[in-house]
Amino acid sequence: METERETEAREKAPKTWEMLAKLAAAGDAKALEAYVDGIGPSEAFRAILRLDPEEREKVLTTLSPEDAADLIEEIPDEHASDLIERLPAKQAASILSEMDVDDQVDVIGDMHDDDAEAILAEMTPEDAAHIRRLIRYDPEVAGGLMSTDYLAYRESVLVGDVIDDLSKRADEREEPEHDAHVYAVSRSGKLIGVLDLRDLVLARRSTPLAAILKSSLFVRAEAPLDELEAFFDRYDFQAVPVVDERQGLVGVVGRDEVAEAIANRSQEEYAKSKGIIGGDEIRSLPVLTRARRRLSWLSLNIVLNIMAASVIAMYFDTLSAAIALAVFLPIVSDMSGCSGNQAVAVSMRELSLGIVKPYEVLRVWIQEIKVGVLNGITLGILLGVVAWLWKDNYWLGLVVGSALAINTMVAVSLGGTVPLVLKRFGVDPAVASGPILTTVTDMCGFFLVLSLATLVLPQLAGV
Amino acid sequence: METERETEAREKAPKTWEMLAKLAAAGDAKALEAYVDGIGPSEAFRAILRLDPEEREKVLTTLSPEDAADLIEEIPDEHASDLIERLPAKQAASILSEMDVDDQVDVIGDMHDDDAEAILAEMTPEDAAHIRRLIRYDPEVAGGLMSTDYLAYRESVLVGDVIDDLSKRADEREEPEHDAHVYAVSRSGKLIGVLDLRDLVLARRSTPLAAILKSSLFVRAEAPLDELEAFFDRYDFQAVPVVDERQGLVGVVGRDEVAEAIANRSQEEYAKSKGIIGGDEIRSLPVLTRARRRLSWLSLNIVLNIMAASVIAMYFDTLSAAIALAVFLPIVSDMSGCSGNQAVAVSMRELSLGIVKPYEVLRVWIQEIKVGVLNGITLGILLGVVAWLWKDNYWLGLVVGSALAINTMVAVSLGGTVPLVLKRFGVDPAVASGPILTTVTDMCGFFLVLSLATLVLPQLAGV
Repeated sequence: METERETEAREKAPKTWEMLAKLAAAGDAKALEAYVDGIGPSEAFRAILRLDPEEREKVLTTLSPEDAADLIEEIPDEHASDLIERLPAKQAASILSEMDVDDQVDVIGDMHDDDAEAILAEMTPEDAAHIRRLIRYDPEVAGGLMSTDYLAYRESVLVGDVIDDLSKRADEREEPEHDAHVYAVSRSGKLIGVLDLRDLVLARRSTPLAAILKSSLFVRAEAPLDELEAFFDRYDFQAVPVVDERQGLVGVVGRDEVAEAIANRSQEEYAKSKGIIGGDEIRSLPVLTRARRRLSWLSLNIVLNIMAASVIAMYFDTLSAAIALAVFLPIVSDMSGCSGNQAVAVSMRELSLGIVKPYEVLRVWIQEIKVGVLNGITLGILLGVVAWLWKDNYWLGLVVGSALAINTMVAVSLGGTVPLVLKRFGVDPAVASGPILTTVTDMCGFFLVLSLATLVLPQLAGV
Repeated sequence: METERETEAREKAPKTWEMLAKLAAAGDAKALEAYVDGIGPSEAFRAILRLDPEEREKVLTTLSPEDAADLIEEIPDEHASDLIERLPAKQAASILSEMDVDDQVDVIGDMHDDDAEAILAEMTPEDAAHIRRLIRYDPEVAGGLMSTDYLAYRESVLVGDVIDDLSKRADEREEPEHDAHVYAVSRSGKLIGVLDLRDLVLARRSTPLAAILKSSLFVRAEAPLDELEAFFDRYDFQAVPVVDERQGLVGVVGRDEVAEAIANRSQEEYAKSKGIIGGDEIRSLPVLTRARRRLSWLSLNIVLNIMAASVIAMYFDTLSAAIALAVFLPIVSDMSGCSGNQAVAVSMRELSLGIVKPYEVLRVWIQEIKVGVLNGITLGILLGVVAWLWKDNYWLGLVVGSALAINTMVAVSLGGTVPLVLKRFGVDPAVASGPILTTVTDMCGFFLVLSLATLVLPQLAGV
């Protein structure tokens, strides 16, 4: 928490985004660049998202392409694409040309096809061809995560020549992203082996690489994120070379890129499970876009909700005769939803840790039903006693208590197994588990309360 | 999805955990070790969690301490602690002694104090003292994430001596975890500067380190995860040295350790938001433990649910006169909960990206209410039309439609701002946002439907 004095200081200081807009409007490229450097990339990112679209364009076009590229590289890809798409293609291309090729690919890959084509047309034919080659990989496979900025030499090259080349690169400050290993390739580009810098330090300058090479593990360009995660779990390497179907070296993917992709995926899962489809809303997007995206999820849910609640309409006679039941309908359905969601969370965690496989539905069900019986009975007794004491009618307590107990068992059974089944059929469990679970437990909860009440209606009359 | 043939093959093969138990029961250390090596660490992890506690103990004590340590290093810390705690202290200590010191600290840090003390008493006094020094750091600050396995030399040492030492370490396979940089320290252990391996390759052997050192950035041992994340965002380094209050070098924290800690945090947030407090349940924990932990969250929720639903009890007259309202009570409260949760997810995302600061409540509210008005009116019209057509009573449509529209605006306002307010007051928004939001939107939804209905009750009679 901040002190009052800090709050006051913060409120009086000019906002970073106001400063950005002011400097851009004045057209002072130098001052703008110095200011962006001074506030650091995360504050610059925060500030640029606060500007309206015209101000943003003005900032990006006032900065030199190099500085604009530095700024954009700090922004999550999907938002960076939005920013660049809005610029004239020529300016977009000149900014992109200053970025690393893997960032170019990420940003262009997230654009609409026609915007991407317009920008590629402004780049040099070689750059555009290189990007087109890389862009075909899914962003969550090795080919999409890899960097093409690494050290590779033909196996016949001498250690001394490699050291001289490294020395020249260091002088020219052209150090590649992956510089801890040197990869050796054949004449046709096939991966032959690997060396680390230590091997070079310890070898004689006149030795050819081929003489001291170690054989190298590798991953295929199509290897999905889970496979990469398992690879880095198993082997204590910082990076692994990526090869195409002809065993040709096409890139290097690092442990940290994989860890970052996994972190993004779990953040997205969190957002998706709460109804932010795609997982990437931030509030600087236009209001209509945000409202429309959220509505796509809500309108599915309202249909499911109406379906579930229509169960209540079948029992108007029971409900009229024992109106107190109306208080317990939402309690039973909400509480079962809570229990079921706990089971969903544990299944998602076990799936992501690899402890459970999508086919182990029976095992998960057995483990969930044990917890469901214990917690269902506990919660059922709790709610039953409340209902009994409130209306001094133990039949009411028995009806709502049993309904909650049974529905809790239904909910944990579904919550535990639905993510496995969805995953097995290739549906994203983070998105779909919640609505399925809620609809069924609501429906089942209403049915249990009202049908049990109907059975003992004479005992409930007038509560 | 797997084919039928694959399913069949899988079902016939002996399970990995059955094999583990069998080999351990036979006491065949060699065969057990070979089997664990063969299935790889993630399957070994999966298998060991399937065993019951006695079988597990048998497996860990049959393996040599080195192999048991290798196995345990693959398991998430909190579960590794559970495994080791159950072993006799002597055996636990001999397994731990084979682990890296930072893994030792993580595992012992998660144990109960008396188990930890018993194990420390079995270790050498130096090892125990080292662990006690490191264990005081919170696991989510630089001191808790750092490794103490890095290369440091006094600044007066010659390049040639460093290269000879590296060469000796390589021969003895004692390469440190962080080997991309060499840190130079003063006589008293203060961090003076840094070199990368390239600098060593390119320097003359007779040069002292002091002559070619570069100044080094560093982080304090108390730096929290957010600060480390910002550091690695800002600087393109793979690792950063960690210093204590006297500027003494105490460890090195890598980009990948920070990325992994962030990934763990977002997985925990997901689990917490669904009511798995602590975030670390897996189904191999004892049923009673799992049930009790889940109940702690559920019993709070049932109290909140009863509070919210008690609003309904105040309007029994209205409800009896227009029983159709009972169908719309759960729809209005559930749908508002969905809208509010979307706003929670966006706030959590913006907080974690650093785009929004906890004090910017007003700005977030303005951006949420715009979406809330659009979606509230859309959903209100949708539900209103359904209600009107169903009972051919447009007053019913007006009541439930307006209630949903207004409650959606309330829900997004709360959902957007509550995480910021909780964060500002030091409460974990992943845990607390959901229950607060649901309780208020339920209460408010019931109140809106029933109080609006009471206003126009003559027009609703008999629906």
